[in-house]
Amino acid sequence: MKKVIRGGTVVTAADTYRADVLIEGERVTAIGSELEANGAEEIDATGCYVLPGGIDPHTHLDMPFGGTVTADDFFTGTKAAAFGGTTTIIDFCLTKKGETLRSAIATWHEKARGKAVIDYGFHLMIAEANDQVLEELESVVTTEGITSLKVFMAYKNVFQADDETLFKTLVRARELGALVQVHAENGDVLDYLTKKALKEGNTAPIYHALTRPPEAEGEATGRAIALTALADAQLYVVHVSCAAAVQRIAEARERGLNVFGETCPQYLALDITALEKPGFEGAKYVWSPPLREKWNQDVLWNALKNGILQTVGSDHCSFNYIGQKELGRDDFTKIPNGGPLIEDRLTILYSEGVRQGRISLNQFVDVCSTKAAKLFGMFPRKGTIAVGSDADIVIFDPRVKRTISAKTHHMNVDYNPFEGMEVYGEIVSVLSRGAFVVRDKQFVGQAGAGQFIKRAAFERP
Amino acid sequence: MKKVIRGGTVVTAADTYRADVLIEGERVTAIGSELEANGAEEIDATGCYVLPGGIDPHTHLDMPFGGTVTADDFFTGTKAAAFGGTTTIIDFCLTKKGETLRSAIATWHEKARGKAVIDYGFHLMIAEANDQVLEELESVVTTEGITSLKVFMAYKNVFQADDETLFKTLVRARELGALVQVHAENGDVLDYLTKKALKEGNTAPIYHALTRPPEAEGEATGRAIALTALADAQLYVVHVSCAAAVQRIAEARERGLNVFGETCPQYLALDITALEKPGFEGAKYVWSPPLREKWNQDVLWNALKNGILQTVGSDHCSFNYIGQKELGRDDFTKIPNGGPLIEDRLTILYSEGVRQGRISLNQFVDVCSTKAAKLFGMFPRKGTIAVGSDADIVIFDPRVKRTISAKTHHMNVDYNPFEGMEVYGEIVSVLSRGAFVVRDKQFVGQAGAGQFIKRAAFERP
Amino acid sequence: MKKVIRGGTVVTAADTYRADVLIEGERVTAIGSELEANGAEEIDATGCYVLPGGIDPHTHLDMPFGGTVTADDFFTGTKAAAFGGTTTIIDFCLTKKGETLRSAIATWHEKARGKAVIDYGFHLMIAEANDQVLEELESVVTTEGITSLKVFMAYKNVFQADDETLFKTLVRARELGALVQVHAENGDVLDYLTKKALKEGNTAPIYHALTRPPEAEGEATGRAIALTALADAQLYVVHVSCAAAVQRIAEARERGLNVFGETCPQYLALDITALEKPGFEGAKYVWSPPLREKWNQDVLWNALKNGILQTVGSDHCSFNYIGQKELGRDDFTKIPNGGPLIEDRLTILYSEGVRQGRISLNQFVDVCSTKAAKLFGMFPRKGTIAVGSDADIVIFDPRVKRTISAKTHHMNVDYNPFEGMEVYGEIVSVLSRGAFVVRDKQFVGQAGAGQFIKRAAFERP
Amino acid sequence: MKKVIRGGTVVTAADTYRADVLIEGERVTAIGSELEANGAEEIDATGCYVLPGGIDPHTHLDMPFGGTVTADDFFTGTKAAAFGGTTTIIDFCLTKKGETLRSAIATWHEKARGKAVIDYGFHLMIAEANDQVLEELESVVTTEGITSLKVFMAYKNVFQADDETLFKTLVRARELGALVQVHAENGDVLDYLTKKALKEGNTAPIYHALTRPPEAEGEATGRAIALTALADAQLYVVHVSCAAAVQRIAEARERGLNVFGETCPQYLALDITALEKPGFEGAKYVWSPPLREKWNQDVLWNALKNGILQTVGSDHCSFNYIGQKELGRDDFTKIPNGGPLIEDRLTILYSEGVRQGRISLNQFVDVCSTKAAKLFGMFPRKGTIAVGSDADIVIFDPRVKRTISAKTHHMNVDYNPFEGMEVYGEIVSVLSRGAFVVRDKQFVGQAGAGQFIKRAAFERP
Repeated sequence: MKKVIRGGTVVTAADTYRADVLIEGERVTAIGSELEANGAEEIDATGCYVLPGGIDPHTHLDMPFGGTVTADDFFTGTKAAAFGGTTTIIDFCLTKKGETLRSAIATWHEKARGKAVIDYGFHLMIAEANDQVLEELESVVTTEGITSLKVFMAYKNVFQADDETLFKTLVRARELGALVQVHAENGDVLDYLTKKALKEGNTAPIYHALTRPPEAEGEATGRAIALTALADAQLYVVHVSCAAAVQRIAEARERGLNVFGETCPQYLALDITALEKPGFEGAKYVWSPPLREKWNQDVLWNALKNGILQTVGSDHCSFNYIGQKELGRDDFTKIPNGGPLIEDRLTILYSEGVRQGRISLNQFVDVCSTKAAKLFGMFPRKGTIAVGSDADIVIFDPRVKRTISAKTHHMNVDYNPFEGMEVYGEIVSVLSRGAFVVRDKQFVGQAGAGQFIKRAAFERP
Repeated sequence: MKKVIRGGTVVTAADTYRADVLIEGERVTAIGSELEANGAEEIDATGCYVLPGGIDPHTHLDMPFGGTVTADDFFTGTKAAAFGGTTTIIDFCLTKKGETLRSAIATWHEKARGKAVIDYGFHLMIAEANDQVLEELESVVTTEGITSLKVFMAYKNVFQADDETLFKTLVRARELGALVQVHAENGDVLDYLTKKALKEGNTAPIYHALTRPPEAEGEATGRAIALTALADAQLYVVHVSCAAAVQRIAEARERGLNVFGETCPQYLALDITALEKPGFEGAKYVWSPPLREKWNQDVLWNALKNGILQTVGSDHCSFNYIGQKELGRDDFTKIPNGGPLIEDRLTILYSEGVRQGRISLNQFVDVCSTKAAKLFGMFPRKGTIAVGSDADIVIFDPRVKRTISAKTHHMNVDYNPFEGMEVYGEIVSVLSRGAFVVRDKQFVGQAGAGQFIKRAAFERP
Repeated sequence: MKKVIRGGTVVTAADTYRADVLIEGERVTAIGSELEANGAEEIDATGCYVLPGGIDPHTHLDMPFGGTVTADDFFTGTKAAAFGGTTTIIDFCLTKKGETLRSAIATWHEKARGKAVIDYGFHLMIAEANDQVLEELESVVTTEGITSLKVFMAYKNVFQADDETLFKTLVRARELGALVQVHAENGDVLDYLTKKALKEGNTAPIYHALTRPPEAEGEATGRAIALTALADAQLYVVHVSCAAAVQRIAEARERGLNVFGETCPQYLALDITALEKPGFEGAKYVWSPPLREKWNQDVLWNALKNGILQTVGSDHCSFNYIGQKELGRDDFTKIPNGGPLIEDRLTILYSEGVRQGRISLNQFVDVCSTKAAKLFGMFPRKGTIAVGSDADIVIFDPRVKRTISAKTHHMNVDYNPFEGMEVYGEIVSVLSRGAFVVRDKQFVGQAGAGQFIKRAAFERP
Repeated sequence: MKKVIRGGTVVTAADTYRADVLIEGERVTAIGSELEANGAEEIDATGCYVLPGGIDPHTHLDMPFGGTVTADDFFTGTKAAAFGGTTTIIDFCLTKKGETLRSAIATWHEKARGKAVIDYGFHLMIAEANDQVLEELESVVTTEGITSLKVFMAYKNVFQADDETLFKTLVRARELGALVQVHAENGDVLDYLTKKALKEGNTAPIYHALTRPPEAEGEATGRAIALTALADAQLYVVHVSCAAAVQRIAEARERGLNVFGETCPQYLALDITALEKPGFEGAKYVWSPPLREKWNQDVLWNALKNGILQTVGSDHCSFNYIGQKELGRDDFTKIPNGGPLIEDRLTILYSEGVRQGRISLNQFVDVCSTKAAKLFGMFPRKGTIAVGSDADIVIFDPRVKRTISAKTHHMNVDYNPFEGMEVYGEIVSVLSRGAFVVRDKQFVGQAGAGQFIKRAAFERP
């Protein structure tokens, strides 16, 4: 089965050029000018960019949180991802103290099986780092292909791990070649401020942001970096939201440490004032870290441009406004944390980034796809359009101007945080390993077609 | 005329994959797995990397200096460059106060004409920034395709410009989209220290280094950055040699300024002790900025790895030891400044960089070729292997271990600063716009085959 | 002749305590509780602070500038200083290229002779650093008692020295134990921006500030520091106005360099909006560096509190609004640079500093008096109230609330930049070497009573 | 009862002058030149400095640790302190979870009662910050005069508090005006590294240092600062040992935070190589933080000189080599942590600091006495020689050269970490509130003469 995409402009993390792309089976086999492709299905990409499928390194699908479950599961979530130009996600496999890693992973495989329409991998949460866990990690990394480990420095009494756990995880990760991820906020401080706010009767959504100050993120980021330096390990800071954290990462990299950072579309395009919207609207913007003062956006864009931050994840973790976000109407701490973000990641980065002159077109591909593939052990199979790579390809029309809306999005949720935003760029068609998932803006994918990707260990440099 | 390179591993700034490369005429027209290529000349690259030709953004060929002239002209220099895997150079066109830019450029075109075996462009030195010069710059940038302007902050009473000249150049460059380059050392300080050393009878080569302290480079770098910020312009710091300069560039980039930096193989692989070699041997290592204490090497490698510095130029400026360097036997200030470095740039970067785990293979391509093409307005014509790009290609065998020596190098000079160094990697064959310049380690190029490249203006971001 | 000051609270840079102060002749001879002082004149200081007389390390009296001369000479200026609680000034002795230092100093002695009502010293401007000047400096420092040398990095074609001059001065100062002072703004940049503004028809006072951006001060400050490090010398940055300069000084001190900084009351209490006052009012606030955006004030106060900056000078350089400032009505570059500031220095520091909780009472004394005495070689003769020290004493009533106004001030000038400002604290009486200059708010001093102070060389640490 | 000290040079944090000092009862009543002092006991200080008694803000007397008790109690410890020129100590009152603060304080009062020969205060350790403790703190601070609270970030499972405890303490301290002190090392990291070392058979004293890396101190210092910023509180970092911590404090102060730091003589004059002494000698140098690489000493001296650090404490915590240090002969973790340092604090600071030109004589007084008095609410009663202050006075002869030795020291311990060091300066006589404790190098004090000092709350700035 052959396909040839003609007339488009191929864009990779380094290159931009007019060429046809030939796909045979699941892979790209040739790229050329006016390729001969007898018998191939012809796909017209005239006027469009031909991009490597996006890689979203940060999703939470079918995840229980605070007594409820995210609105999107592996079917609706990956379908929406595909509509947004994403062809691979890495979802967070949660674990609990006392549970074996094997068991937690099995649970997560179960969630995805038969549902995912695009490929996926797992990060693994480390809840505690006892001897059994540390031993079990060897097979997780080398056999299971789960090569990134997440430690929470916040959510006290829920997910939060202490420094001992973080440090042991870093030391073990160094031995095994795993990349350690941190949710970097000082949970003890947040816990105190949260309780204090409630005690003082401050229950509105804005207090979610006010009780999670930037300095608490900066501190935890700095701490994780220091521990990484002490363990000579490698660190990936998820969802960096503010200048205080960016600065610590910049310093770490200038020192030569293997420290990486991810930001998210919401921190680049929204700000703290959203939580002050009238009524209970602010609840739609409750996630952690919270939205920050607007000036932080420039710092984040510049960090992407200059390679201080490497990737953009969505931190997709969707809850409906009706019935879910509403749980916190009288108490912001009961608002489920998270938002529906999996679909608009590339759109925001292109429209607010490339079109506004903040990052280049190649950087757009790099931060939305290539760097994630490289950092998380999927390159060059994923993350690029190159001979031999999986034909995970997005046909993107940069000329279309459209408006983001929950009415037209594909996530299984009743609102969109970018509602009403005018953007440039439309995902026309999406292929996953050579097969259409979205074709001319219609879903043609198949639940279960997505495969679990065993990932390779982290490589230096 | 078609050629196909088979069996190699194509490496770009982003990608690494096995593929065949088809060349038609001067350009790459297809890249694929087992490409059909009827009638094409077959080139075997089995076991080799297929790299974009190197771009050396910093050369001085046929340049007068201190009463003598560099040992390499545009023929011997570009031939040696080709042997080293470089397919494009950008040479510095010197100017004098009072001379029109037009006249200086004509002189430089004359030097290159009929001699260059690979493509070349020019940077233009700005000796003074009077109204006539500033006006003439418009046609230089927009018509002549010379889009980078060099200002010297050192060489007092020779090349050195004052801050007024630098600032006016930056302001004008902002208007025209030119990239301003600085030789960043505080010439006033150097002049004082030099005279003082001579007065005290300190005439040996090591005093060249001791009278040009790192802080003088750091200061000038910081000053150029401050003026760039004030002019909202774009700056490229040539031959960064030390931590003091790297730190200023890192801070500038973290602030979001359009500031870029280049280092050179000599700063990455040699250190100040070379100037203390017995006899007058140290003279072979006299160039500016001077070699630094060894610990600076780690800082420079890390800066390349993390994108604080973007490019590696050779600053090739060769003088024979016998008859030229010897001019300074009794007075280090009379030693012609510069070294023969055009040939071993890629080799040092691969062998000391990639093989030692300091940078990745893709970063190697990026800093030796791609970033220079992008910053200096030649991308995507140069700097990558992609459909539609010039077929400037290097077949590089990473398995070969060899020893650098003046006996075997191709530069027209009687010594090699890396003499005796064991390195990995050999440039097997080199194509310039589809034609072999080096084939199986034999020169098959032609004087005058190299073309002048008109470059595009600097683009943000 | 004995005097005893009773009932007050003695305040020094370190101490605050209730005690009587006995003066015999020109000196303090005892401090004690209920001192016996037979035959002494009793002075009541009940409820008041008894402070060491202020030292103003930065004044310009009887100074020619731009075709006019400052409104205050050594009589009116020192009288106003005394009313403001200052008992010693250090005035800047200007020099010209070609002139001997001896001659310049003689001119300045002439200006002061018979006029000064309080003690005074001189800083010496270095216009060029040729061999003769460098040689002459020895006697200036060791015999003349002029131990601080000022280099201008701004005022192109007027006062501005190049880096060679600055560096040679630093090197020589290191040998002689002189403290080098810099006016740190990049004059080349300012010159360009000024001409550009005029060319564009921007002639109003606000353009004085807009053509002297903070970054130009930061750059020059960083450059002077770098040269100081290279010369292993000692540096004092005068009139620091903004965060960009403070940051460089903080870094220098953290590195252990002998770098010191002075700010002025106007930068602490006024901001750039003053230059935008209606009509030509802004001209009253034209001096260099210019007033900055208001947020810089916090940075400066904190720098005083934390010892990043050590002193507060007035940079008094008064010109009448009528007839002098007016020279620039159609061209801001013709407005004489400077303001009447000698009188309100202590008042602003006390009222805005101590009363607002920004610095402590002891820090107030330290920055207004003690540190200047120490840095400029007059301690412990000046700068403290201690046994053996000159009885330069201010009786200061902190309880009085009053309003600053040109109507009541004693400077020979027709406006006051702090006009209408409500302040706490009143200088009741002032003694210079045991003799009243101001008594109960009345002038009782004598022209010519002030003596020239030969100062000692700079001491480390 | 009157005394007069004649012929000496009085030195305070600001001043240095020749004068006689009159003492009536417990206080200084006059300072003057040739004071009349009928009936007063005459004390000759010719050729000597007359200094404010030292204040040691960091001692551990009669303290249980790891199954043993410190060698010095409040009698031997304060006697040795007096011999070293210290007239006030602030000792750390330990607490345990579950115990009331009242009870812990009572225990500590009991230890001191009838034993101390000089005045003393207490800091209070906060082991947990539950509601009861937070409430009880009000009377501790306002009634008991214990206005500084210590939180340990290290000693896991012994003293270590979590961030919640630290943050709550900071918030409460802000309300009450208490100064929070931290032992800043990341205990979780240390615990891991320690266990690992033992597991690998690394039991020698040097492993004490190797398992407590500087970055672990830098991290904890940065964290404590971040939490202080978030609580808008005031912080005092005890025993700063290395550049990594100094840098964080410098940044905090430049930001304007109320952050202060203390170092100790041992970090200024000894280095990590001491722990590698042959045999088990290294155990004599086991304390926490450990001694660091020698280059850190310059950073610490400069920090004292520039006011980045404010005080020098001894962290005296003495254990005999025989019988106590020996407990860890086979396991460095069993070596009691601490050293006999109370006696030589001023000597080291004078001899290595003032004599070596690293700090001035006034800075010596400031860091050894005045700043501690100011920060800990005892000024101006303690910390200076001024009218009305306690006559806590040291007569110090700077001319004497002598050798530190356990044979001659007065601490109740069998070794001295500075054994054999040649120093300048001898404490001749010491007065506490007007009474001799040491007279002509003989102990004439009295157990129990020392009084508990109720201290005032922290004041800003």
